[in-house]
Amino acid sequence: MRTTYRKQLDDVLEDLVSLSDIVAVAVRKSTRALLEANIKLAEEVIAGDETVDAAKTELEQQLFSLLARQAPVASELRLVVASLRMVSELERMGDLAAHVAKVARLRYPEPAVPAALLPNFTRMGEVAESMVVRAGQTLSQSNVDAAEELRRQDEEMDDLRRSQFKVMLGPEWPHGVESAVDVALLGRYYERISDHAASLASRVVYIVTGEFPEDDDWPQPVGGSS
Amino acid sequence: MRTTYRKQLDDVLEDLVSLSDIVAVAVRKSTRALLEANIKLAEEVIAGDETVDAAKTELEQQLFSLLARQAPVASELRLVVASLRMVSELERMGDLAAHVAKVARLRYPEPAVPAALLPNFTRMGEVAESMVVRAGQTLSQSNVDAAEELRRQDEEMDDLRRSQFKVMLGPEWPHGVESAVDVALLGRYYERISDHAASLASRVVYIVTGEFPEDDDWPQPVGGSS
Repeated sequence: MRTTYRKQLDDVLEDLVSLSDIVAVAVRKSTRALLEANIKLAEEVIAGDETVDAAKTELEQQLFSLLARQAPVASELRLVVASLRMVSELERMGDLAAHVAKVARLRYPEPAVPAALLPNFTRMGEVAESMVVRAGQTLSQSNVDAAEELRRQDEEMDDLRRSQFKVMLGPEWPHGVESAVDVALLGRYYERISDHAASLASRVVYIVTGEFPEDDDWPQPVGGSS
Repeated sequence: MRTTYRKQLDDVLEDLVSLSDIVAVAVRKSTRALLEANIKLAEEVIAGDETVDAAKTELEQQLFSLLARQAPVASELRLVVASLRMVSELERMGDLAAHVAKVARLRYPEPAVPAALLPNFTRMGEVAESMVVRAGQTLSQSNVDAAEELRRQDEEMDDLRRSQFKVMLGPEWPHGVESAVDVALLGRYYERISDHAASLASRVVYIVTGEFPEDDDWPQPVGGSS
């Protein structure tokens, strides 16, 4: 019985790591869809979000059933409680990747991002994907140190977003209001993916150390002219 | 022992309802700060967000301790699990109210919202506040029917956001890029408050009926030209 229980917990962890892989791929594809105005990839990410949602529901049910049948305590209870939260974070990251893909689809066949901002969004996509992958590794390896690296990456994301505002609000923005609105919202979606990845890692710290994260919403929103 | 346990659960519920009241006030004040370019109110909401964060941490700890010590089952376990999620939703709504206040502060002494969009944002604020209040009532009264009304309000919020895009992307938008970016992000913040309120109510349905909500992220993002 005991073995089965531990195995169930391990399975949940493995499923969470798999889900983080799926989300990382969604982030990569949605970024490519955006940068290349690739409608096929955009549709793929949008349709694929159902898989993420289904995995979330399935995992929530497993975790609930673990709580109900096994009444875990101490570190195992922490693991279950943190997993409930992590599964929500992953599902939201999937949603946000789908939001990015929807903007790409909305503007197709035009690109949603002006050429001048392609390097910026390329980097945003890289950072976001790497953060999701790292959050997944943090989880699979119970690696507390990686949380620090995620915090650094989250700062890079904020810097990228500030650069976007600088370009958009500078005197030489020839792309008009619609494009600026797209960029502002896209930037917000990437920023939120980054926030969720950092928050997910802070849950791992909680599982391992038993300390509630001091602040699991570290990141401040990046304001228009800040 | 049993009585104490039930009392602890009731206390948590009461605290969640109180937290929803605090968040509703934050939403109201941040909207006023925005519409009236009222820096004092904006600062109040921003500083007050710490209270929401502290209440969240406190409630999470109580819920964890309930799980660890009482190993609840069936409907009481559902209540605890749903409460964990609801406390996150409320904390996020508080963050979003603070984001609105930060935009008001950033543009002060200028108003962040052009006069033409004041009625729209006034209504957004009313709908958002009413949704938070209703979500709180749904919780305190275990009222499943209110979830339906929240869905309707969430649709009104989406319509309001579509109107904003129409105005911003119309030929007669004289307010430039910066203002459009502010409006796009502010609209997104209100939309997310609305999403969280609807999601919170769907958790109540889950507590009462034991059915996982079919889709607790009902709302679709409102795209630029949709």
